[in-house]
Amino acid sequence: MRRILATLPLLVLSLAWAQQAGGNDWLSWLALAGGVAALAFAAYLTRQVLSFSEGNDTMKEIAKAIREGARAYLRRQYTVVGIFFAVVFVLLLVLSLIELNGARLLNVYAPFAFVIGGALSALAGYIGMTIATLANSRTTAAAQESLNRGLRVAFSAGTVMGMVVVGLALIYITVWYLFLRAQLGGDYTGISQAMLILGLGASAVALFARVGGGIYTKAADVGADLAGKVVAGIPEDDPRNPAVIADNVGDNVGDVAGMGADLYESYVAAIVAASALGVAAFPGSADGILIPLAVAAVGIIASIIGTFVVQTREGAGLTELLNALRRGIFTAGGITMVLTALVVIPILGLGVFLAIIIGLLTGIIIGTVTEYYTAPEPPPAQSIVKASETGSATTIIAGIAVGMESTLIPVLTVGLGIVLAFLAAGGIGVEGFEVARGLYGVGLAAVGMLSTLGITLATDAYGPVADNAGGIAEMSHLDPSVRKRTDALDALGNTTAATGKGFAIGSAALTSLALIVAFQARINELIPERELTLSLGDPFVIAGLFIGAMLPFLFSSLTMSAVGRAAEDMIKEVKRQFDTIPGLLQGKEGVRADYASCVSIATQGALRQMVLPSLTAFLAPLAVGIVLGPEALGGLLAGSLVSGFALAVMMANSGGAWDNAKKAIEAGQLGGKGSDAHKAAVVGDTVGDPFKDTSGPSINILLKLMSIVAITFAPLIVVLTFVR
Amino acid sequence: MRRILATLPLLVLSLAWAQQAGGNDWLSWLALAGGVAALAFAAYLTRQVLSFSEGNDTMKEIAKAIREGARAYLRRQYTVVGIFFAVVFVLLLVLSLIELNGARLLNVYAPFAFVIGGALSALAGYIGMTIATLANSRTTAAAQESLNRGLRVAFSAGTVMGMVVVGLALIYITVWYLFLRAQLGGDYTGISQAMLILGLGASAVALFARVGGGIYTKAADVGADLAGKVVAGIPEDDPRNPAVIADNVGDNVGDVAGMGADLYESYVAAIVAASALGVAAFPGSADGILIPLAVAAVGIIASIIGTFVVQTREGAGLTELLNALRRGIFTAGGITMVLTALVVIPILGLGVFLAIIIGLLTGIIIGTVTEYYTAPEPPPAQSIVKASETGSATTIIAGIAVGMESTLIPVLTVGLGIVLAFLAAGGIGVEGFEVARGLYGVGLAAVGMLSTLGITLATDAYGPVADNAGGIAEMSHLDPSVRKRTDALDALGNTTAATGKGFAIGSAALTSLALIVAFQARINELIPERELTLSLGDPFVIAGLFIGAMLPFLFSSLTMSAVGRAAEDMIKEVKRQFDTIPGLLQGKEGVRADYASCVSIATQGALRQMVLPSLTAFLAPLAVGIVLGPEALGGLLAGSLVSGFALAVMMANSGGAWDNAKKAIEAGQLGGKGSDAHKAAVVGDTVGDPFKDTSGPSINILLKLMSIVAITFAPLIVVLTFVR
Repeated sequence: MRRILATLPLLVLSLAWAQQAGGNDWLSWLALAGGVAALAFAAYLTRQVLSFSEGNDTMKEIAKAIREGARAYLRRQYTVVGIFFAVVFVLLLVLSLIELNGARLLNVYAPFAFVIGGALSALAGYIGMTIATLANSRTTAAAQESLNRGLRVAFSAGTVMGMVVVGLALIYITVWYLFLRAQLGGDYTGISQAMLILGLGASAVALFARVGGGIYTKAADVGADLAGKVVAGIPEDDPRNPAVIADNVGDNVGDVAGMGADLYESYVAAIVAASALGVAAFPGSADGILIPLAVAAVGIIASIIGTFVVQTREGAGLTELLNALRRGIFTAGGITMVLTALVVIPILGLGVFLAIIIGLLTGIIIGTVTEYYTAPEPPPAQSIVKASETGSATTIIAGIAVGMESTLIPVLTVGLGIVLAFLAAGGIGVEGFEVARGLYGVGLAAVGMLSTLGITLATDAYGPVADNAGGIAEMSHLDPSVRKRTDALDALGNTTAATGKGFAIGSAALTSLALIVAFQARINELIPERELTLSLGDPFVIAGLFIGAMLPFLFSSLTMSAVGRAAEDMIKEVKRQFDTIPGLLQGKEGVRADYASCVSIATQGALRQMVLPSLTAFLAPLAVGIVLGPEALGGLLAGSLVSGFALAVMMANSGGAWDNAKKAIEAGQLGGKGSDAHKAAVVGDTVGDPFKDTSGPSINILLKLMSIVAITFAPLIVVLTFVR
Repeated sequence: MRRILATLPLLVLSLAWAQQAGGNDWLSWLALAGGVAALAFAAYLTRQVLSFSEGNDTMKEIAKAIREGARAYLRRQYTVVGIFFAVVFVLLLVLSLIELNGARLLNVYAPFAFVIGGALSALAGYIGMTIATLANSRTTAAAQESLNRGLRVAFSAGTVMGMVVVGLALIYITVWYLFLRAQLGGDYTGISQAMLILGLGASAVALFARVGGGIYTKAADVGADLAGKVVAGIPEDDPRNPAVIADNVGDNVGDVAGMGADLYESYVAAIVAASALGVAAFPGSADGILIPLAVAAVGIIASIIGTFVVQTREGAGLTELLNALRRGIFTAGGITMVLTALVVIPILGLGVFLAIIIGLLTGIIIGTVTEYYTAPEPPPAQSIVKASETGSATTIIAGIAVGMESTLIPVLTVGLGIVLAFLAAGGIGVEGFEVARGLYGVGLAAVGMLSTLGITLATDAYGPVADNAGGIAEMSHLDPSVRKRTDALDALGNTTAATGKGFAIGSAALTSLALIVAFQARINELIPERELTLSLGDPFVIAGLFIGAMLPFLFSSLTMSAVGRAAEDMIKEVKRQFDTIPGLLQGKEGVRADYASCVSIATQGALRQMVLPSLTAFLAPLAVGIVLGPEALGGLLAGSLVSGFALAVMMANSGGAWDNAKKAIEAGQLGGKGSDAHKAAVVGDTVGDPFKDTSGPSINILLKLMSIVAITFAPLIVVLTFVR
């Protein structure tokens, strides 16, 4: 901690120095300082985590198997993604070299921005996952001593993930901005366009990571679960179950690496989209680009301070722990508000500041509602518990109804948030009303919502570490009290994870809107004579809206079927091992399951199955843009945004509510484990798995990726389209 | 048949006479003649159905119980709807009397159009249901003799329903047009606006009928199903099951009366929406209003002829029967094409004609795709069959994936259909491009799709009659061969019902688009200075889009929960009867279940539960319009249209595929009835019940009702809105 506090004076000094430099350029130094602080803090915490004991030899061995499986998967995933990136890089390079009517089809820096942006996203996922796999057995070992020590290790590992994500993202965006500034001088439009391509690289990696990781984790989870039930009647975490290591690997590649890449992308996309709108709102000035960077930087500083507030006394109860986490998040939010006011109001005025705060509050409301709809005690999950009395069919119906109902308040919040941010930024301190400033306000609201990502992501990423720790406790036959402690940590993680998902989807909505506006501006810049108004009275726009609204459904179908197929392969392999390895089922001393082959089957399955949905996301906007024209493409982006938002919220919350309804029964309601109600609840939970961890979260990325593809390839679409 | 053929010369004569009358006014006489022909044909078929034997005393008694239960429900439902209508009538009356800035807030005829339109919709449902409940035991009796005789009775009853719906609708619209014409002279804009209100009355009745009937039928179905399983292990149709009569009543109030009101509304809304666009496309002429009426009329004539082609030899197999039905539908389609060409091309040209044909083809493609995704043999349902091997969780996942995937082609078809109809009507035979004509083409495409409703609805409505016939056969202990025949008829009905649902949702999409354009025109007429462009770059439009896209989810959640709650009451009552009526479970001679109390519980449950979702549909557009303004309301309509379309298709097809996957297993796959796979498939089917018969189809009406509410109350919204 002292090390970190030591960086603060450094920060203040560099700010003071930078402010001398003239204009508001000191904001870019603030951004760099924020990014460096995040990475420094991550390094400090990593050392702290590694100082804990790894536990006994069995635990070490299991942790090593998980770590190696996860790394092997990520390496192979990155190989596939690498091939994809090479192809797109060449495509972008060609486009950037073609001149048509005196203008290049693409900014010359775009191909490089794409590749480097993707590489850093992959790096963030890799680092986060490595620390998570190093922390899991350490969490188990620490939980042998006390609940609190376990929490500290797991939460520190999560914080490393959060800080690496925001640090890498902010440094890269800022360096890129400074480089472009040096190259292009005052051409802020050109600068912001090249910056948007950063989002393309990050989105592409995120999509593969989310989809591939999501398929992996749920194929292994569902496979392990059903195999145990169908074949041998052994529990999920039983060491005899050959899929058990794959299941634990899945938590890391899906819930850690996948989610890290996802939120890295959200963060990058929100900042660059806001920057693009900022140039339109404040033409000829760098302020519009610099303010989102500065807000991100103060958010990082606030998040670091927030993690220090997460202190709790030895022997604290769960509610107390949860409150400690919340205190951290709220502290970070409060500090962000104050610092943002200090930075933003003098430069861009009160209205813009209020838009940022509206974004932050929108995120908090969505998170709170998500918690209500997924926590075990409130009425929604309890309605599922009640429905489980009459069997699995009513459990499913109740869970889907809960998920669908849960879309109401987040949608109203986002809708009002958009309108209020628009009105605040465009109408306060301005004569009349300035639409461009209003739109900038919407973009900044997304940045505001994600500004404290460092700490919200920490509370999210710590969950899988605790989950793994529980698996390791079970497999290494530790005292049941240890498993009980890790289960408690896991339950805490489920609650905070729900909040994290609310932030992810909420920011995706605001960012996508900003990207749609940027797309419209880009087309109007390319073919001003067209005057793209994207009116709902235009049949092409409506046709695009229809297609767009359908895409999240199609995409979810593809990802869910992928999980189903990969899980089936897994079940077959488990069956084969029980049939052919003598003594495995009986738990004979010295007989071990072939875990590696299950890991490899999950890996292959995920890699094979992730290609089709990912390509769909990439090709759909291109195809619609070329065949039906830019109006239809604009409609597609809006249609997928609004239906995808509702669908993603529904799937995430149905899944979360089913999960916690099952947990409520396991905690003793309706006869507990083994009762008929429990069996019905398990069916709900299994259906919810791909809902909440594969299909639902992938939709966030789908929405933004399609928007960024549309913006990047706008010049190509304009040239090739059949509709003129 | 001779009677009907006798009406044809009459038709020709009246046409010849009408054509003398001058201009294209003869088209209105053609429309009237078509409507009268439909009703005459319905009367003829009714007599034919009634000439069949009702069967033995037990069958008569059961049929009577079903008929009385159904009528009692409908009477009570209409009482509730009547109160609602009285309130809205007074509201409309007040609005129509208020003058603001020299213009009335509402057309003076609107309140009356609303009430009479609603009353006729209710009447169509009542007549259709009465004939269905008169035909059920007659179908059973006829099936005792042969499969073919059974088909003839059931299909004739379905045809009565189809003809009553199209006949009443077309006559009413035409009479109303002639009345307005006499009152308002050449003010075609005023005429078309008053005509739109017809849609409001029909939509309101349809929503209550669909939602209430849908809740009734599925509460009784799920309740009977689960009660038998949970409590006593007796099958659904067993006479000992106290919910068995309620279940059969449900088929009539939901699948007959509810569906009839639904399609009556689709038909009316499509015609009046097209008329409104027609006035804009051909200002100062009645042609734009008359052509939709004429297309509907020729469609009726073609449908009547088509029913005569549905002839098959004694002892034909199922495929042969299905082909006979298809032959009827295709014949009607072909004749419609020819007659439409003769009527439309001379008056409005080739482009408009092509738009109508594009609509007809769009409907056929959607129907065919729906069949593919829900029929037992093709890959989609088979993927569910396969998934049922690994339990109910994978069955659910597979079914949802199938439903989501099934949105792809219908959406692309509708999207392309919209664009092509727009391009054809707006671009062919016109100098340059005329947007108003193009939009008219989209509206006419919806009319084209529904033109052969008389026969498509017949194939749809006959299913519940066959279903009831099977129940009666079971309850009156007839020879199993009779049940086998009625089961075959039922299976045929399932396939054609899927096609019918495709038409309903497809036409809803096109009609809603026409209504959105009409809404935009209405606002621009009321406040021209606002220049409502409904651009996707406008945050208010986007906020509305978000809210709109969420509403179908919320609405589905409300209807699904309603089914769950009503089913629970039913299960409790069944339990109570088995506990308190001695000898019931054992099937003791002379001991009868108290069927009436189950009927009354389903009735009360449906009526209580239908209010909240229905009011939501009515109030949501008003609230958003007033609080966020007309831009947001326009966004709401488009958002609900595109997400609702995808969601409705998904729910209908998931439900259909689960149903038929279960049937495929019952037919012998994977061990047949009683196997573990069958148990898993039953869970899927039960989840699918509210999907396909309550929530999914209700969405169609929700979309159109909200659009018509927006148009009707536009003047009020403009006055009250906070956003200026």
